[in-house]
Amino acid sequence: MSLLAVGTVAFDDIETPTGRAEKVVGGACTYISLAASYFVKPIRIVSVVGDDFPADMLHYMEHRGVELDGLQIKKGEKSFFWAGRYHSNFNSRDTLDTQLNVLADFNPVVPEHWRDAEYLMLGNLTPQVQLSVLEQLTKRPKLVALDTMNFWMDIAMEDLKKVLAKVDVLTVNDEEARQLSGEHSLLLAAKAIYKMGPKYVVIKKGEHGALLFHRGEDMFFAPALPLAEVIDPTGAGDTFAGGFMGWITKTDDTSFENMKRAIVYGSAMASFCVEAFSIERLKGLTPAMISHRMQQFAELVRVDFN
Amino acid sequence: MSLLAVGTVAFDDIETPTGRAEKVVGGACTYISLAASYFVKPIRIVSVVGDDFPADMLHYMEHRGVELDGLQIKKGEKSFFWAGRYHSNFNSRDTLDTQLNVLADFNPVVPEHWRDAEYLMLGNLTPQVQLSVLEQLTKRPKLVALDTMNFWMDIAMEDLKKVLAKVDVLTVNDEEARQLSGEHSLLLAAKAIYKMGPKYVVIKKGEHGALLFHRGEDMFFAPALPLAEVIDPTGAGDTFAGGFMGWITKTDDTSFENMKRAIVYGSAMASFCVEAFSIERLKGLTPAMISHRMQQFAELVRVDFN
Repeated sequence: MSLLAVGTVAFDDIETPTGRAEKVVGGACTYISLAASYFVKPIRIVSVVGDDFPADMLHYMEHRGVELDGLQIKKGEKSFFWAGRYHSNFNSRDTLDTQLNVLADFNPVVPEHWRDAEYLMLGNLTPQVQLSVLEQLTKRPKLVALDTMNFWMDIAMEDLKKVLAKVDVLTVNDEEARQLSGEHSLLLAAKAIYKMGPKYVVIKKGEHGALLFHRGEDMFFAPALPLAEVIDPTGAGDTFAGGFMGWITKTDDTSFENMKRAIVYGSAMASFCVEAFSIERLKGLTPAMISHRMQQFAELVRVDFN
Repeated sequence: MSLLAVGTVAFDDIETPTGRAEKVVGGACTYISLAASYFVKPIRIVSVVGDDFPADMLHYMEHRGVELDGLQIKKGEKSFFWAGRYHSNFNSRDTLDTQLNVLADFNPVVPEHWRDAEYLMLGNLTPQVQLSVLEQLTKRPKLVALDTMNFWMDIAMEDLKKVLAKVDVLTVNDEEARQLSGEHSLLLAAKAIYKMGPKYVVIKKGEHGALLFHRGEDMFFAPALPLAEVIDPTGAGDTFAGGFMGWITKTDDTSFENMKRAIVYGSAMASFCVEAFSIERLKGLTPAMISHRMQQFAELVRVDFN
C-alpha cells in the first residue's frame, strides 16, 4: 500500500512563550509525510517549493521513504513562508506574516504513475487545489482524508463544500467543526458534517485530545498525553493526520475499529511533534519509542471495573 | 460507611446563551450530596441557609438520604446567593452578583455524633472554614477531599496552603492548578501540588474531561461525554466531586485503581448535571440510567489493539 499526500512544504518562523525558531522547515505535507513514514513506505507527495528549499532536507525525506516525483521545485522562486506567535496557553496563535510565494499559482500535478493511489491525504490547502488533485486520479482511492481550516470556511465555503462531498474523512479542530456546522455541540457538529459527505469526522482538540465520529453516531475519544514541556505545537495536527493515515495505509483497513487505533497512533505521533521546534522530534524516532508512547496512551485511560 | 460533606446550600440566578433560571436551588453542598446519594447513604452535610430556603427542598434531600443535623437554619436571614452569566462557549462565566448573607459569619459546627466521619468532602468555601471542620473531627478520616477555587488563591493563599497540607485529594480546574502551582504543564502542576500535601490531584477540565494524578506520577484520564445539548454547567464540578466521593465511600477503597473508577462515576454524574438547570437532572435518576451512562463512557475510549 502507498499513501499519496498533498500539502505545503515550507519555511516557518515560530515564536512561543519559551523560545523562537527562524526559517525552519515546516509545511503540512512535510509533517504528514514524515509522521506517516514511520508506518508505511512509500509516501508520495504532491507539493511545490522554491529553489531556496534545502536539498539536504529533501534528501532526508527520500531517506525516510518519501518519494518526490510530485514535488515541483521552482527555479528562482521562494518557498511558502509562514510566521506565527503562540499565546501563553499554547492553544491559540497569531499569524504574523504569510508569504505565498510559489503557492500563489500552485497547480498540483499528480505524476501519471501515481494516479491509482489507494490512500490519499489532502493536507490543508485551497479547496480548489485539493479538488484538482482528486480529479486527476484515475480511480477512487480506498480512503480520502481532508484537512482544512477556518480561513477556507471564511473565503471559499462553496469550494470547500464541493470537495467535502467527495471525501471519507475530515480532520478539523473543534472551533472549525463548530464554524463549518453552525452547531456548538461537537456531537451535533459531527452529525451535520456527516451530511456534507465525510463518513468519518475527526475533531482535533490539541492538548484536549481528539474525537472520532462515524456516520455522526459512533464516537471514540483519544486523550492527548500530558507532557512536562511543550516546545512548539506547529505541525501537531498534520503530524496527527500523518500518523493516522500512515497506520490506515499500512493496515489497509478502513473499519471504525481500525480508525480508532489510527487515532491513537496519530495522537502518539503528535505528542512527539510538540516536544521540539519544527520537525526535529520526528527525526530518528524508533519503533520502540513509538511503541512505548502507545503504551503510555493505553495506560492513561485504562480502568478496570471488574 | 458515611460521607460528611461541607459546602454551600444556596440560591443561584443563571444566564446561559440559551436560557435563564432565577432563584433556583444551588450550592456546592447541594450538588455534592445529591450526586453522592446515588451511591451511599447517609450523606451528612454541614452548611448554613436562611429561613428563605424552601422546606420542600430540604425534605427532598432527606428523602435521598441526606442528613441535615449539621445544617444551620438562620431565622430572619437570607441564604447565600450567586448570579452568573455563561459566555457563548459555556466554558467561562462572569459573576454578576454575590450576596454572602448567612455565609458572611458562617461558623461550621460538626454535630458531636458525626465527628468520627470516615470520608470527608470539603466543598469550595473559605479555607478557614474548611480547616475549622477538619479540626473538629475526633479522628482522621480515611480520606479527605478538598475543592477550592482561584478566588481563595488570590486572597487567602496562606490559609489554603495550611488546609492543603492536611488533605488527601485536591479537586481544581486546569487554570486553578496552573495558578496554584505556577506551572503551565498540568503534569508539572500536579507534581508541584503533590508536594503541598494531596496524594491525589484531580484536574477538572469541564467538557475536556478530568485528569487524576497520584503522587505526581501515575496518571489517569477520563473524557467528558460529548452531549447534544448543554443547558447549564453550574454545579458540574461539585456533582463530579459528589459522584467521586460517593463511589469511594460506598466501596471503602482508596487505592489508585478505585480512584480511577471514582473519576468515571464522577464524570458520569456531571454529564447528567449539565443537561438541565439547577439540580433538576439529579432528581429521579435510576441505577439503570447511571449504569447506561457508565457504559457510554467505557465505549467512548474502548479500543482493541489485538
